[in-house]
Amino acid sequence: MSVAAIRHILCVNSGSSSIKFAVFALGAAGEEKLAEGAAERIGQSIGRLWLQRGQDPIIDRQLVLSHHQDALEAVFAALTEAQYATPDGVGHRIVSGGPHHQAHCLVDTQVLGDLRASLRFAPLHLPAEIAAIEAVQAVWPGIPQAACFDTAFHQSIPEVAARLPLPRNLWHEGVRKYGFHGLSYEYIVSRLPNHATGKTIIAHLGNGASMAAVHNGQCRDTTMGLTPTGGLVMGTRSGDLDPGVLLYLIEEKGYNAAQLERLLNHLSGLLGISACSGDMQTLLGLRNDDAHAAQAIEIFAYSARKAIGGLMAVLGGLDRLVFTGGIGEHAAAIRWAICRPLTGLGLEIDPVANEGPEPRISVAHSPVEILVIPTNEDLMIARHCHRLLPAQEQHR
Amino acid sequence: MSVAAIRHILCVNSGSSSIKFAVFALGAAGEEKLAEGAAERIGQSIGRLWLQRGQDPIIDRQLVLSHHQDALEAVFAALTEAQYATPDGVGHRIVSGGPHHQAHCLVDTQVLGDLRASLRFAPLHLPAEIAAIEAVQAVWPGIPQAACFDTAFHQSIPEVAARLPLPRNLWHEGVRKYGFHGLSYEYIVSRLPNHATGKTIIAHLGNGASMAAVHNGQCRDTTMGLTPTGGLVMGTRSGDLDPGVLLYLIEEKGYNAAQLERLLNHLSGLLGISACSGDMQTLLGLRNDDAHAAQAIEIFAYSARKAIGGLMAVLGGLDRLVFTGGIGEHAAAIRWAICRPLTGLGLEIDPVANEGPEPRISVAHSPVEILVIPTNEDLMIARHCHRLLPAQEQHR
Repeated sequence: MSVAAIRHILCVNSGSSSIKFAVFALGAAGEEKLAEGAAERIGQSIGRLWLQRGQDPIIDRQLVLSHHQDALEAVFAALTEAQYATPDGVGHRIVSGGPHHQAHCLVDTQVLGDLRASLRFAPLHLPAEIAAIEAVQAVWPGIPQAACFDTAFHQSIPEVAARLPLPRNLWHEGVRKYGFHGLSYEYIVSRLPNHATGKTIIAHLGNGASMAAVHNGQCRDTTMGLTPTGGLVMGTRSGDLDPGVLLYLIEEKGYNAAQLERLLNHLSGLLGISACSGDMQTLLGLRNDDAHAAQAIEIFAYSARKAIGGLMAVLGGLDRLVFTGGIGEHAAAIRWAICRPLTGLGLEIDPVANEGPEPRISVAHSPVEILVIPTNEDLMIARHCHRLLPAQEQHR
Repeated sequence: MSVAAIRHILCVNSGSSSIKFAVFALGAAGEEKLAEGAAERIGQSIGRLWLQRGQDPIIDRQLVLSHHQDALEAVFAALTEAQYATPDGVGHRIVSGGPHHQAHCLVDTQVLGDLRASLRFAPLHLPAEIAAIEAVQAVWPGIPQAACFDTAFHQSIPEVAARLPLPRNLWHEGVRKYGFHGLSYEYIVSRLPNHATGKTIIAHLGNGASMAAVHNGQCRDTTMGLTPTGGLVMGTRSGDLDPGVLLYLIEEKGYNAAQLERLLNHLSGLLGISACSGDMQTLLGLRNDDAHAAQAIEIFAYSARKAIGGLMAVLGGLDRLVFTGGIGEHAAAIRWAICRPLTGLGLEIDPVANEGPEPRISVAHSPVEILVIPTNEDLMIARHCHRLLPAQEQHR
């Protein structure tokens, strides 16, 4: 493996109170994850920083992380302490760049300004993501940074699917379907034979959940819309609703914007239905004793099943369904609950394979192949960053 | 035909500015429509009252109709003038009776009080419907009246489909999926062999539009939700949305409840997309010369197609799809646009039959039968009213 061909990429995934990171070595000879870790509980009295190499814990300590720049500095210090070289590039997961930035790109002053002007398209996510870019600039001013958008994969969605049934002026100001989880979908497409020839539905099911209808590798539609609140029933988010429900809450119950935002993003979905948890693993543990937990699981699967049918209609048929994301990869019971009633639509899940380690979980004669493929959004960020780095930076 | 077995039923369908009516004679020997008509432009400077028998116009005049009681009195006077007997019962179409009244019932003081207390579940429709009941009481105090709910057909929807992914206390106060167009669905089911044995989707497509998934005659799910604003893209209504769109409109554009209500019920759907009309017939006339009209039609069909897929997943397959309602019955081009891309899901529409007069519009070998059946909500109201009238009223 030629050292000259290898670049180290730091991938940063910033949330409101945590920063997850990973370091990859990418080159012609292959892709290797060198480290991963997180700075957690940013802004709380005691934070945590950990870093591991493979399964080996290298650093795990408590410290105060007042804000994102503190946290990023602690991450950089940890990487130096663990004897990682300064990265050749830093790739950031960016939930949305609004209408003007959907293609992955290197960050310059213009891009950063555009992101700051796009806050209204991702008010819950963009502030932390912009703060992380600024923190890297402050600590390592010379290192190129890439913005990798969760909306990028969805640029191929045709206008008939992306346009909302609202007055046209709203489209012009960027109110449209964007779709999210794009880095996950891109990774799954890269793992499928011939980059997903035919008709594929990818179900990224985690605390946030969405599905994409993919034809010959190109996204045709997805369940999430303008924001990650739409689409499927999720951990604490409602997904799509009759807008009359919001009118009812405003007019009859006096909800203001902040109360609606909290209700629909943080108190709905599995948590709202179960009245105990938005975490699927917790609910699966409770479902034999708690009728509300069981009902939340049932409604989650029902919502996913309807979305599969809707996306099958978009594609005009289906060759394969891929499960990924925390729930999609690990919750066999959920995959079963989603697929079992769909035999009549050509999805024949194999109860034994569904519990086993192989990717294929449909029976041999199933018209629709059903697969489980672990996602790897960090690797996808590293690949894009590697690809976008200037050519003169290619040799270290 | 024995006179003793016949009852005359007046059916009333009240909107905010018009009252449509029809008179039926129902008995053991058959069902006959004796007259139909409408009082239009209530509350405007000049109203209109018309009545016809079959295709023959009997009355058509301009007059001032200040409010619903005026209008109903004019209707009663017209019926007397045209020599119709006082009806044995009056049946009202009621959009929603909220959580406490979903089964069709005779109106008494209790029911009327409950309806007045349910205004929040149908603020756009119930006031006029209650006014019509009160007007009949005032003019013909002794005549029994029946409340026929558009939500009644949907009582069989299981809780997994009816419960919204919101905190449980909202379900307890009646925030749930109700579904609408139920009188139309009931009528279509009554017209299908063996009351719709197997798996049926009924698409009621008009200015308001919804679909129902029906298994062995029982409704399992429907596209409309708490209010008639939800579900499919409609003439001027948005249908279901990412709730993040409403949060955006409130937080970024300062919309208040009245503006949201107007936007989502009166300025969206086909009208919003086309920027010219919410009327499908108008758009079909324009589509060759107007790209926005063509796009509105395309998005309407796309929305309907996705809903068919979603309801196929609910049913686990499909035996027949029935089109009804103004668009469903008359717009062959829309039926074609909806069905043609669904060949891979077993819906094989016949281009010739689709333009013809026969109910069946699928090819002979199509796995899913596709039918067009004109709806008759008035007759369904008359049947329910007839069935509910007290036995002592049975002989005239």
